[in-house]
Amino acid sequence: MANFNFFAPTQVVFGKGAERQTGALVKAQNCRKVLLHYGGGSAQRSELLDRIRESLRTEQIEFAELGGVVPNPRLSLVYEGIELCKREQIEFILAVGGGSVIDSSKAIGYGVVNDGDVWDFYDRRRQASACLPVGVVLTIAAAGSEMSNSSVITKEDGGIKRGYSSNLCRPKFAVMNPELTMTLPHYQTASGCTDIMMHTMERYFTNNGGNMELTDGIAEALLRTVMKNAVILHRDPNNYEARAEVMWAGSLSHNGLTGCGNGGDDFSVHALEHELSGMYDVAHGAGLAALWGSWARYVYRDCLHRFVKFAVNVMDVPAGADSEATARKGIEAMENFLRSIEMPVSLRELGLSLSENNLRLLAQKCGIATGGTKGSAKKLHEADMLEIYRMAL
Amino acid sequence: MANFNFFAPTQVVFGKGAERQTGALVKAQNCRKVLLHYGGGSAQRSELLDRIRESLRTEQIEFAELGGVVPNPRLSLVYEGIELCKREQIEFILAVGGGSVIDSSKAIGYGVVNDGDVWDFYDRRRQASACLPVGVVLTIAAAGSEMSNSSVITKEDGGIKRGYSSNLCRPKFAVMNPELTMTLPHYQTASGCTDIMMHTMERYFTNNGGNMELTDGIAEALLRTVMKNAVILHRDPNNYEARAEVMWAGSLSHNGLTGCGNGGDDFSVHALEHELSGMYDVAHGAGLAALWGSWARYVYRDCLHRFVKFAVNVMDVPAGADSEATARKGIEAMENFLRSIEMPVSLRELGLSLSENNLRLLAQKCGIATGGTKGSAKKLHEADMLEIYRMAL
Repeated sequence: MANFNFFAPTQVVFGKGAERQTGALVKAQNCRKVLLHYGGGSAQRSELLDRIRESLRTEQIEFAELGGVVPNPRLSLVYEGIELCKREQIEFILAVGGGSVIDSSKAIGYGVVNDGDVWDFYDRRRQASACLPVGVVLTIAAAGSEMSNSSVITKEDGGIKRGYSSNLCRPKFAVMNPELTMTLPHYQTASGCTDIMMHTMERYFTNNGGNMELTDGIAEALLRTVMKNAVILHRDPNNYEARAEVMWAGSLSHNGLTGCGNGGDDFSVHALEHELSGMYDVAHGAGLAALWGSWARYVYRDCLHRFVKFAVNVMDVPAGADSEATARKGIEAMENFLRSIEMPVSLRELGLSLSENNLRLLAQKCGIATGGTKGSAKKLHEADMLEIYRMAL
Repeated sequence: MANFNFFAPTQVVFGKGAERQTGALVKAQNCRKVLLHYGGGSAQRSELLDRIRESLRTEQIEFAELGGVVPNPRLSLVYEGIELCKREQIEFILAVGGGSVIDSSKAIGYGVVNDGDVWDFYDRRRQASACLPVGVVLTIAAAGSEMSNSSVITKEDGGIKRGYSSNLCRPKFAVMNPELTMTLPHYQTASGCTDIMMHTMERYFTNNGGNMELTDGIAEALLRTVMKNAVILHRDPNNYEARAEVMWAGSLSHNGLTGCGNGGDDFSVHALEHELSGMYDVAHGAGLAALWGSWARYVYRDCLHRFVKFAVNVMDVPAGADSEATARKGIEAMENFLRSIEMPVSLRELGLSLSENNLRLLAQKCGIATGGTKGSAKKLHEADMLEIYRMAL
């Protein structure tokens, strides 16, 4: 196995009514003024924001507000948030929402305490030296941003979606009440479950420096748990236990735990998908579902031992003498699972009808965003990326 | 499932050569003067301490030293460390060793920054308000103290062993090089593996507020991984991969991860064992092994669904129609595993020949230490504790 670092310092407060502790958690951070950052619709409708405001007032915490974060969060709102925080002398950002709101908060946090254009970090020009502290009240189980070191922002000019990762932005606390996710439409729940699984699978399918049995065991348990509970939520969206299993899986899937000892992640499917949702604004999890099978069929022979292990331990495929056949059955089983929760397994099912020129542009942009190559299960160049997009049509 | 908090902020640096980063990790803590705290024998012999001193000097970090920690670490040395830290204006404690050295460091850390007698915290008289920061270079995989909130100290007067838990003492960083554990005698390695498994099993066998599938899956994967690799280390103590699996399992087993959602731990076997090692100075892991089977047979009917799940998912017992028989087969299989790595499964095998009066004194002390009752799988009173000690003869 490979050497590794693990650092997941976020204080998690999990369960029914957890959001009532928000004010006290912010107060414990010793910050005088907070930016309350959130999205457009459902959070406001659910009165959650009113309860958070009340919780802050109870602790006599001053706050400014910035709403309007959209899925695939925009750089323009990040700039607006940075200006607001500087003007109001904000010391802490409280994200109320899902991955988009949290990622926007992290980007604002970088922008407030580092000089120059915050996009530089996302555009791989330089590294941040600090980040304003961020706390989270989570309303969607998906991105894992509530414990992760990652933030993904979309620059409207050119539809460029880029991620920047650094331990500086890991949230100080995450308030997670699974009940808050019960009102999500099925498509968002299923997209979230897909994203959660992909965060573990991107770490599972690796060819770098061996693997760790304990990490594999945890990853496999997480994948089986999410699949089982995604199916339950498909027919019973108000099932608290299933909501809770998925929500906690979302955090553990992307806080680093499921990659320990693997010597580097793959994250090719994420890279391929970022170009899709940057250009066409599709739901990230659904985009991952539409691409995964094509990616897997393109790379599995180069990472056969892992695809066989996945097929047997996660998808319950009987281990056969023909390893390639076993691996392919695992891939088919995963696609069948995705279909069972009404996720797309092709670009067409995702609602996109793309020309060869569209595909070439996606591959070209993915090549630029990844610096030419991406992947650990198989190293992908631009030509490989194009071929996977074609297979996914 | 039950609501839960999870907080494991320790920065883990894991793998070959990790100890070379120690000086830089201490420096990043912005502390001017460090106490280097360690045990008696092997660490010095292995020249590890020399390398750590060199690493500190390279970063121009001043340090004082206090060695001599013994297994079941003593309160008298804690007092000595507190005086030394105050005299030398120490700001950070670097523990080089296993659970005993880390726990001694945490106790010193409490004592330096809180007025009054540090034993008050262990004796349940009051709560600490702070703790000097602690860092760890781990040399034994066992106690999990490198990421845990726990510290256990023995007061020589009366042989009283008590634990105190608080997030204040969670180490800032843990340097873990599995190679450093290769020179351990087999008995210590096996005791460590037992302690690691017990930290998860104490969380697994609960009757409070339901359980979480994801937590169970992680716990079961951890137990299977430790068993497999404990057997490998029995015949091949220099196996790096097996040392690494066990070392990482030790941290995850006691940092809170394997109890999320279970609504409270059991920890009866630990409570029963603390009296044993407090009075007779036996190896903690071996003491746990000697007691576990008797505890399990005494309580399993009151927590039958968990013992059946354990038997099937961890010990590979076929699920039978008779749940009690399935549970008992799981207990027997665990005892057979312990025998296979030469751990004792009775007090006699542990080397203790105890009279009825000895047993009564142990039960009486355990009753006092636990405030009268202990346990979640089954609530134990002093009479139950005595019966379990008797069964373990």
